[in-house]
Amino acid sequence: MKSPIQEKIDIIKRLKEEAGSHSPSLFTIKKAIPSLEINVDACFLSNPYATDLFLQYFKKQLIDTNELRNLLEFYPSQNRVIAKHLSNSTGVNAENIFIGNGAIEIIQTILQRYTKTKIIINIPTFSSYYEFVNKEVEIIFNHLLKENNFQLDINKYISLVKKEKPDTVVLINPNNPDGGYLDYSKIRTLLKELKNVNTVILDESFIHFAYEDDKYGLRSASSLIYEFPNLVVIKSMSKDFGIAGIRAGYSIMDSKRVDDLINNGFLWNSNGLSEYFFRLYNDKSFLEKYEEVRITYIKETQTFINKLKSLNNIKVYPSKANFVLIEILNGLSSDSFVFNMLVKHGVYLRTCSDKIGLKGQFIRVASRTKAENNKIIDAFKEEISNNYNPIHETSNTKF
Amino acid sequence: MKSPIQEKIDIIKRLKEEAGSHSPSLFTIKKAIPSLEINVDACFLSNPYATDLFLQYFKKQLIDTNELRNLLEFYPSQNRVIAKHLSNSTGVNAENIFIGNGAIEIIQTILQRYTKTKIIINIPTFSSYYEFVNKEVEIIFNHLLKENNFQLDINKYISLVKKEKPDTVVLINPNNPDGGYLDYSKIRTLLKELKNVNTVILDESFIHFAYEDDKYGLRSASSLIYEFPNLVVIKSMSKDFGIAGIRAGYSIMDSKRVDDLINNGFLWNSNGLSEYFFRLYNDKSFLEKYEEVRITYIKETQTFINKLKSLNNIKVYPSKANFVLIEILNGLSSDSFVFNMLVKHGVYLRTCSDKIGLKGQFIRVASRTKAENNKIIDAFKEEISNNYNPIHETSNTKF
Repeated sequence: MKSPIQEKIDIIKRLKEEAGSHSPSLFTIKKAIPSLEINVDACFLSNPYATDLFLQYFKKQLIDTNELRNLLEFYPSQNRVIAKHLSNSTGVNAENIFIGNGAIEIIQTILQRYTKTKIIINIPTFSSYYEFVNKEVEIIFNHLLKENNFQLDINKYISLVKKEKPDTVVLINPNNPDGGYLDYSKIRTLLKELKNVNTVILDESFIHFAYEDDKYGLRSASSLIYEFPNLVVIKSMSKDFGIAGIRAGYSIMDSKRVDDLINNGFLWNSNGLSEYFFRLYNDKSFLEKYEEVRITYIKETQTFINKLKSLNNIKVYPSKANFVLIEILNGLSSDSFVFNMLVKHGVYLRTCSDKIGLKGQFIRVASRTKAENNKIIDAFKEEISNNYNPIHETSNTKF
Repeated sequence: MKSPIQEKIDIIKRLKEEAGSHSPSLFTIKKAIPSLEINVDACFLSNPYATDLFLQYFKKQLIDTNELRNLLEFYPSQNRVIAKHLSNSTGVNAENIFIGNGAIEIIQTILQRYTKTKIIINIPTFSSYYEFVNKEVEIIFNHLLKENNFQLDINKYISLVKKEKPDTVVLINPNNPDGGYLDYSKIRTLLKELKNVNTVILDESFIHFAYEDDKYGLRSASSLIYEFPNLVVIKSMSKDFGIAGIRAGYSIMDSKRVDDLINNGFLWNSNGLSEYFFRLYNDKSFLEKYEEVRITYIKETQTFINKLKSLNNIKVYPSKANFVLIEILNGLSSDSFVFNMLVKHGVYLRTCSDKIGLKGQFIRVASRTKAENNKIIDAFKEEISNNYNPIHETSNTKF
């Protein structure tokens, strides 16, 4: 007979199979296994301190004032009206800003509208980049190598682009799922070499967690669109601001592309709460407080990653994102490791078994609050200790 | 020198010109003229009692429980997961339901994806139907005649379709901006004659305000998709549920089209609040209370329309929507009438001067709360009385 732990693991396995190239949500898992105790969701890539901050403003400015009713009842503003709020914070003109119903809408739209022949995608990557392209488009995968810590080999990449002549290339910086970062000067060098590519997508969804100096200054490539009109910078607000549920994203691009999108119907794709958020994004007091929680979170994240690096039986790859890619070296598969961590410790990690271009047993671990990160470390220590025993050998009498 | 009233009217005129085929929002107008007192927004087409009801649930289930944080922080579910909540209320299978970021996203997507050659659109209409089509598509306008109370002449329409052979036709029921209604049996007759049209869009965004019996029963054509697989029913939730700010809409269509849309990237286009709303839409207690406010609002709306019909110098056209189309017969242009009503009475109406296919001076008036409707009636009485004097003759000394 199966142990209760094994039964739970089997259910989670099935849910993972059903979810395809994404992870089943904790909501789905909890529904299937109500008795499961979940302590930390380290699949979820967001700054929890920023969520706290947003909720403080939400309560004070919307709930306490009854302004919330207006946001729910009436139509939000048109795309260009909302774009104006972002001009200050992004350092570009409003005519270069397109607001999306989450970054995912922009990824979908840019790929479907402008990618017609061939795309080069670095892998491992966020799967939507190859799942959303039109059927007739040829996809060329450029493998980032674990031997090279998943760093992009710039010379090799430029040669590949010159040889393949794609109309689109995708760069994610920092990259997902490994967190590898290309600094601003390298991005600029690259862009110079990519001038003949029709569309250069630069996804900066995790850029708020990266830094190049000891003051953790933010270095977006957004303003490079004036030098490189083929550049399309895509930015999710879900990760850095911890507000995935309100669906807010934007893109910085040549004004002709913004016009093209607006003229083709993307007028009313924001909701009342995303409009409110983008107004906050232009509020000096909010931005000052946000900057504090951003830096606190980066520091805690780097401490967390360093603690993970000190553990045995895993290899931790360098990251400047709010997550880290880890190779499991104790013989367990990444799926089994993740299911064990969830059922035995209530810690939900992201298995990377579905990621194209990852050879080996990889998992992705998000940085959460300081207390949660400590729980993750403790669970890791137990699971990868030298005395490790597979789950079915230790647990069948206990339940 | 201009009077202050005339100055305000001139500002509003300019804002209207800038807003093109839509009306400037009250927010925009208030920002431009802070001193303007606005009592009733009768441009805005929604059931205010349904907004009250939604807010009661929102407070009880989200704010008081702190569940709101989860909706804002975490990713909403995928399209198909949310579609399951609607199966009961719509009476169709989940595989036939596609969730949109507002009905407008669905209108945009259906037109751009499936309309390739020629479209027939009845006018007057909601302008997005001709503004969002691909450039290469030929647009044929079928004029609804005021002499015929804007009712669709079905035989003439069928002849036009057979002659023109469009790949798409659009029917809005009740129609916007006149509120003309085709009953269920007529819709079915029409659909039988439209079998050779690739895509029949039936926009039922105002169907909750229509009725065919004295119990105000709701008759959607949604389930006719099983008989007519070319039928695409589009439904906004903004009007009937009074929640335009959360952006919730859905479409009922052949499952192959749902698959096509989902496979092309429409996975995560809902936000946390629209997902919450669609869960409510499957909640028996909520639906019972909603049915009460729906019927109350219909009754009040029809009383309001009847009162308008009793006034002189205007012609009120028949409507089974939550608004009514009115022709101004006192010699003023529709724009001037609307600006007068706003500046002198604080009542904001929708001028139809920008609507293609309306010859004459037309305005659209939304039904609001009972008290607000009475204010609208009073303002009408003053403005269209026989002793009417144009504004610049009476007001230049008062301010």
